[in-house]
Amino acid sequence: MSPFTDKPSETVSSLGELKLIAAIRRWLGDATPATPFGIGDDCAVLPASSRRQLVTVDPVIYGKHFDDSVSPRAVGEKLLKRNLSDIAAMGGRPRAAVIALALDATISTRWLAAFYRGLASASRRYGVPIVGGDVSQQSGRFAATLTLIGETSSDRVLTRHGAKTGDWIYVTGTLGGSLLGHHHTFTPRLDEGRWLVTRPEVHSMMDLSDGLAKDLAALAPKGAVPALEAAAIPLSPAAHRLARTSGHTALHHALDDGEDYELLFTVTSCTDRAAFESSWKRKFKTRLSCIGRFARTASAAHVNLQSIHGYEHLR
Amino acid sequence: MSPFTDKPSETVSSLGELKLIAAIRRWLGDATPATPFGIGDDCAVLPASSRRQLVTVDPVIYGKHFDDSVSPRAVGEKLLKRNLSDIAAMGGRPRAAVIALALDATISTRWLAAFYRGLASASRRYGVPIVGGDVSQQSGRFAATLTLIGETSSDRVLTRHGAKTGDWIYVTGTLGGSLLGHHHTFTPRLDEGRWLVTRPEVHSMMDLSDGLAKDLAALAPKGAVPALEAAAIPLSPAAHRLARTSGHTALHHALDDGEDYELLFTVTSCTDRAAFESSWKRKFKTRLSCIGRFARTASAAHVNLQSIHGYEHLR
Repeated sequence: MSPFTDKPSETVSSLGELKLIAAIRRWLGDATPATPFGIGDDCAVLPASSRRQLVTVDPVIYGKHFDDSVSPRAVGEKLLKRNLSDIAAMGGRPRAAVIALALDATISTRWLAAFYRGLASASRRYGVPIVGGDVSQQSGRFAATLTLIGETSSDRVLTRHGAKTGDWIYVTGTLGGSLLGHHHTFTPRLDEGRWLVTRPEVHSMMDLSDGLAKDLAALAPKGAVPALEAAAIPLSPAAHRLARTSGHTALHHALDDGEDYELLFTVTSCTDRAAFESSWKRKFKTRLSCIGRFARTASAAHVNLQSIHGYEHLR
Repeated sequence: MSPFTDKPSETVSSLGELKLIAAIRRWLGDATPATPFGIGDDCAVLPASSRRQLVTVDPVIYGKHFDDSVSPRAVGEKLLKRNLSDIAAMGGRPRAAVIALALDATISTRWLAAFYRGLASASRRYGVPIVGGDVSQQSGRFAATLTLIGETSSDRVLTRHGAKTGDWIYVTGTLGGSLLGHHHTFTPRLDEGRWLVTRPEVHSMMDLSDGLAKDLAALAPKGAVPALEAAAIPLSPAAHRLARTSGHTALHHALDDGEDYELLFTVTSCTDRAAFESSWKRKFKTRLSCIGRFARTASAAHVNLQSIHGYEHLR
């Protein structure tokens, strides 16, 4: 379904600004609280919190993050979920979101309603109210930028910095082939992130958005490289399916494809891995894989990451 | 100066993603703190605060909020200042900002550097660190969306709701003709907002962004209309200048033009206005004008607001 319509009576501009904002409230329903804690004032107001606050921002842009083949509900859900994945990556808890829309006057009201209903549905599922936003006109475009405010769930946050040479590398779920559907249907690993932040053996964490090969570089301690065991990398069914026609191996897809939205983290080299993994299994059904470690050098027995670049945001 | 360049070597895409992010850090300088409190992790982390948190989001979009005639420094400064004006309107204090860029691959590095230097300059002036963000490619465009996190400076926040019939209407500064320059050079009324929120006679507040005539409707109590004294409305020199060629009166510009970024607020009908105004004068050089009150009806002696619509965001 296209976000644009050529029937003037079905466009957002036929509604006008005030009616559009009223419609947005209606589409969001109980996913947006009453003023002054919701839409409609100069700022949204969040209750005080004794925790450190987390802030992340990510957009969905027509022609870039989605096209006519994607349902508007899925676009709305994804907008919240990709930001939730960033909160999960710090071991945090989401609190509230604001959304800035830049839209063409010929955006279809029906498309936008479904987009907001998708957003509202994810908002309710994860308990994250949409507390405010902005609507601007931008010709020929649809872009929605969501800023998510969260808070720490523990005394510490897990950042990308903290791994040491020798530390083990873990990943949740299975990787690769996200384009076949996972990039819309994924579940942000919030529960897993909140558990991992309480485990002292976990020293660094991030979410996988640009592909394992590229993202790993962000966790690598100075002077170390990832030494990965090919057989240990959890390949998704979609990576295998894609490999049948893409000319690449399933492993290549697991290393290179973006939008896995899984957690990538390191545990100290002295960790009792068997004990750690069985604690995980008692807690979660989500697959957990130790894929290698950070080492001074990688040998020919390890996965060759040289030729794999992951997702480049600007080219 | 145009944000776009046709010389490939001068574009942001010639830098590539990693070098661009490194350049952004350099352009921001001490306006962005070190990780994990700055750019470069999945979320930005803000210290805990015992105050309620305020959140606002506003973009600057090429072709909509600015064009080639505006310096990139002024665009960067405005992006922060228009959000600061929203924090001022609640009587709050700004804490930190994140910025999402959607930019074409042919955006000029030199233009973007000046934009970030302008943002950094405003960031230092108002003590608001830029703690994170996102960069996405969007063909043919430049849009920057800034989300500002603030906190309350007092036990209460001033919202748009709280005025009663009979309450007096006040405005800071002078109004109209913002297009001649004020929409870039304005000063967000943060100090004034923080003082007003401590004054018990002030019951509602907002910032003027879409024009006095339109914005007043948001403060109007149910069943009341603004009864304004034409002679009391503070006309800016720019409103007078514009009136010479526009075919409208300076008063019309003061009522209709957007982007004044002044504070509009109400005080209870029983306020000792002389005492209130002299307290203001002891504290601020900013002009303060009582322009009328909310009444059951407006008479022919009052300003006729019927034909004035202010800025419509979607048309």
